[in-house]
Amino acid sequence: MKQDLSRIANTGLISKITNENDAASLIQDGMVVASSGFTKSGDSKAVLLALSQRAEFDPLKITLITGASLGQQTDARLATLGAISLRLPFQADAVMRTLINEGQLMYIDENLGETAMHLKTGVFGDIDIAVIEASSIKEDGSIVPTTSVGNSAIFAALAKQIIVEINLSVPADIEGIHDIFLTGKYPDKAVIPITSAGQRVGRSSIPCNPEKIAGIVFTDKKDSPADILAPDKTTEKIASCILEFLGNEVRAGRLTKALLPLQAGIGKVANAVLQGFAASDFEHLTIYSEVLQDSTFDLFDAGKVDFASGSSITVSESCYQHIFNNWEKYKDKILLRPQDVTNAAEVISRLGVIAINTALECDLYGNVNSSHIAGTHIMNGIGGSADFAQNSYLSIFVTESTCKGNTISRIVPMVSHVDHSEHDVDILVTEQGLADLRGLAPRQKAKAILQNCVHPAYRDMLEEYFMEACKRGGQTPHVIEKAFDWYKDLRLTGSMKRQHSIQESSLDKL
Amino acid sequence: MKQDLSRIANTGLISKITNENDAASLIQDGMVVASSGFTKSGDSKAVLLALSQRAEFDPLKITLITGASLGQQTDARLATLGAISLRLPFQADAVMRTLINEGQLMYIDENLGETAMHLKTGVFGDIDIAVIEASSIKEDGSIVPTTSVGNSAIFAALAKQIIVEINLSVPADIEGIHDIFLTGKYPDKAVIPITSAGQRVGRSSIPCNPEKIAGIVFTDKKDSPADILAPDKTTEKIASCILEFLGNEVRAGRLTKALLPLQAGIGKVANAVLQGFAASDFEHLTIYSEVLQDSTFDLFDAGKVDFASGSSITVSESCYQHIFNNWEKYKDKILLRPQDVTNAAEVISRLGVIAINTALECDLYGNVNSSHIAGTHIMNGIGGSADFAQNSYLSIFVTESTCKGNTISRIVPMVSHVDHSEHDVDILVTEQGLADLRGLAPRQKAKAILQNCVHPAYRDMLEEYFMEACKRGGQTPHVIEKAFDWYKDLRLTGSMKRQHSIQESSLDKL
Ligand SMILES: CC(C)(COP(=O)(O)OP(=O)(O)OC[C@H]1O[C@@H](n2cnc3c(N)ncnc32)[C@H](O)[C@@H]1OP(=O)(O)O)[C@@H](O)C(=O)NCCC(=O)NCCS
Ligand SMILES: CC(C)(COP(=O)(O)OP(=O)(O)OC[C@H]1O[C@@H](n2cnc3c(N)ncnc32)[C@H](O)[C@@H]1OP(=O)(O)O)[C@@H](O)C(=O)NCCC(=O)NCCS
Repeated sequence: MKQDLSRIANTGLISKITNENDAASLIQDGMVVASSGFTKSGDSKAVLLALSQRAEFDPLKITLITGASLGQQTDARLATLGAISLRLPFQADAVMRTLINEGQLMYIDENLGETAMHLKTGVFGDIDIAVIEASSIKEDGSIVPTTSVGNSAIFAALAKQIIVEINLSVPADIEGIHDIFLTGKYPDKAVIPITSAGQRVGRSSIPCNPEKIAGIVFTDKKDSPADILAPDKTTEKIASCILEFLGNEVRAGRLTKALLPLQAGIGKVANAVLQGFAASDFEHLTIYSEVLQDSTFDLFDAGKVDFASGSSITVSESCYQHIFNNWEKYKDKILLRPQDVTNAAEVISRLGVIAINTALECDLYGNVNSSHIAGTHIMNGIGGSADFAQNSYLSIFVTESTCKGNTISRIVPMVSHVDHSEHDVDILVTEQGLADLRGLAPRQKAKAILQNCVHPAYRDMLEEYFMEACKRGGQTPHVIEKAFDWYKDLRLTGSMKRQHSIQESSLDKL
Repeated sequence: MKQDLSRIANTGLISKITNENDAASLIQDGMVVASSGFTKSGDSKAVLLALSQRAEFDPLKITLITGASLGQQTDARLATLGAISLRLPFQADAVMRTLINEGQLMYIDENLGETAMHLKTGVFGDIDIAVIEASSIKEDGSIVPTTSVGNSAIFAALAKQIIVEINLSVPADIEGIHDIFLTGKYPDKAVIPITSAGQRVGRSSIPCNPEKIAGIVFTDKKDSPADILAPDKTTEKIASCILEFLGNEVRAGRLTKALLPLQAGIGKVANAVLQGFAASDFEHLTIYSEVLQDSTFDLFDAGKVDFASGSSITVSESCYQHIFNNWEKYKDKILLRPQDVTNAAEVISRLGVIAINTALECDLYGNVNSSHIAGTHIMNGIGGSADFAQNSYLSIFVTESTCKGNTISRIVPMVSHVDHSEHDVDILVTEQGLADLRGLAPRQKAKAILQNCVHPAYRDMLEEYFMEACKRGGQTPHVIEKAFDWYKDLRLTGSMKRQHSIQESSLDKL
């Protein structure tokens, strides 16, 4: 592998240069390993791959802690080989997901803003080794990250040993876009003084004791690209509902045309919504989010966004090229920060973020499931959705009203798993329309959701449920023993529809 | 009613003195009325009573917004007369609860830290009249509150008209314990600079434009006393589990003997737990809570607590006497603040609060229901429990393992309503024992809860459910169509026990 010594300003560290196999050999069975990487960006591309190659003939089991999901099929590879006993705080890999759901590997699905605090307070024990992708190492040993910050700063602070992967595919002049603020430890946690998305509060590299650096590896592998789905009719309808709603808020004087900082979660709908702002009336927008997606850069190009703060840049291949070919244009408009800053309740609630996240399903009363299919099988995890939904000024959840060819309604009587309670869901949008749940009691929310969000194929069924539930009474009416009938029907008949009325009458006999 | 003009330093306002009936006549049908009052303390005792007397022959309907629950049977009185169309953000009254559950009055159960933000952003429309209990009015028209602050500062800022109730039963020298910090409006919300429980950041009275003061009424009615239940075997067992756990955390070096600021919710268990600290080894404790209960003052007297911050003092009659007879001893050790400061995510997450709240029920995976009996009928509301559980360093939930003579297990397969997801519940304690859920994946949490928290009468049933669920797989295993069988059995047979196995086999045929 090519080396570029100009990327290591601390010359005392030159002797630490090694290859990925030797570096990976530092990782031993039973260790707690932390790796950079947030939504496929800035992850370890050499050492964890070498580890997985070794694991094929030298079985081992590690705890693997990251920022968020990894690229390079790393999770799939390691999980398939049984090399991970515990994974946290987020993953989004189909193979790993299957193994998690089979109970073959333990997965701690965490609010992305909380892992740093849990690490500092010792919940997961000591970190034996951290692998951190860098664009360079500075004279003081501090690490300039690449396309993500994630939990790397806390990993560098806590790990006993550190392996740095210098990625030559990332231009060295990425330096300057990182804003590394360390939040401190209880009882002396610091005020995070951010009062606008663009305000720098930290330094541009991750403090690191050079003595802990046990190996430096060079690589030139690119980040795995984001899968960008082009907006379709459904996502465009959802986007236009949200834009119209926000326009009305501006006309009502509750927001200005600059709105408040935007956050958009992962998932195709959230990305499409952001894209929709390009052709809108809004101006001088800012983004205070986790992941800066293609849409962020489209909005810069459209002159709509003044500044974007996130924890990673996760974009398609063509967008990646475009960004680094035009780096001068973007570099002063972006800050990448640790995820316990991007996702800090303190900052989100102070800035008044408008958060747009995707739901797997939502219920009559506005409770949202972001993570568990049918209440049991995890899809990805809660990610940062609760950090934002709980603390934002406006918490918007989007979802198509059905999936799997209308056999599944994503608006159900009672969600099978609650990630976000009714208290943290202000606006619900499907391609059917938008329900503004602010200032409503649960029974009123149900009416708004029935009227605006449910797919016509399920509206009567849901209304019937609601009517029967209201006869039973309650602040939040339910027919508790029928609340999950739709899942049972899906299981038994392959659809939430049709068979329902039959099941119902047989249950009535109980 | 006796008057004391020395309590009104702004002499221009003397002419506004009136009686409660005339003041109440300012309140008209359809108005949005805000009243001071937080957990029965510092509430309106004259004007709202007069309003309820008038409502007997002059029907009207208002929206009633408070800090939290009211004393004086005010909620019961007004609700019974049908005088409330919408109530928020918290209540704890048996009569009102019944009417809410019947759907006769709309109730918006809100996180107590969020109402101020919702009011500022216009979610509930304009406040027509605010009624605020005061100990005095200062020369600049600002209002010195009494035993609570709650939402009074935001009410004073936003209401079109203000009625002040000067309560002569509260000594004028209560002045000085209030710390009124206004958090500001988006996009210019301020940093709340609190870095320790005892740090004053605001002024000692509520800013108020004297021109908005439409009436001043004198009263001398005392706060309704708190119902204090003496610790019993169950609550003592729970308390001792928590003290032992915290002692172990100190020994493990994760906490010092001063711990971190304590919050204790309402409910008899939480109060008993705080009381337990009196005979412990801990020292220099601080309290950063909502409600300062009898236990707070017991801990001052025991020399255990250095400082207590809250939004109200809600104590028994004897404790109330004791406090004001010894005011010099306490007054420099207490701050009462607005509830959007006591309950601010920002401050709670910065201080690293140890939060102790009571659950109605908890499930196998650590999800907690604080508010809805059997998923439908509200008890009180979520209160500040989520503000604290989501942002604290340690979120502890306590509950007896059963209730109603063991016919109900408070540890169930799946909670019928989720107020706090597994992500916000670190420790679960019943009289059976303590489960430390930190750093565990859901299946591991289930084992810890089964082993430590479930009542023996339900352990086998719950284990059976868990085993069957694990066969189905998933990150969070459930037998979705049986998840709520225990409630069905309770409904049909009066108990969650016994009949269960019969129902189960009949369901198996489906
Ligand atoms: C919820 C989430 C999975 C949606 O992502 P998405 O890409 O928009 O997902 P889709 O709507 O296409 O659904 C994904 C799959 O699940 C299926 N699905 C969706 N809802 C379902 C439901 N209620 N029941 C069963 N299957 C469902 C879809 O059919 C689709 O299956 P397919 O791939 O076989 O077609 C994603 O946003 C997520 O992981 N969120 C949690 C984390 C988060 O919100 N982070 C935000 C801050 S970064
Ligand atoms: C949850 C809460 C109601 C518990 O309060 P508590 O005084 O300890 O309540 P108890 O355990 O005595 O239960 C109250 C009643 O509900 C019944 N109950 C409790 N759990 C039940 C369950 N799972 N199913 C059915 N009934 C239940 C009890 O039997 C009791 O009935 P009774 O009065 O007829 O004996 C109370 O803490 C609360 O309202 N919490 C939400 C707000 C909050 O947490 N605020 C904290 C910050 S201030």
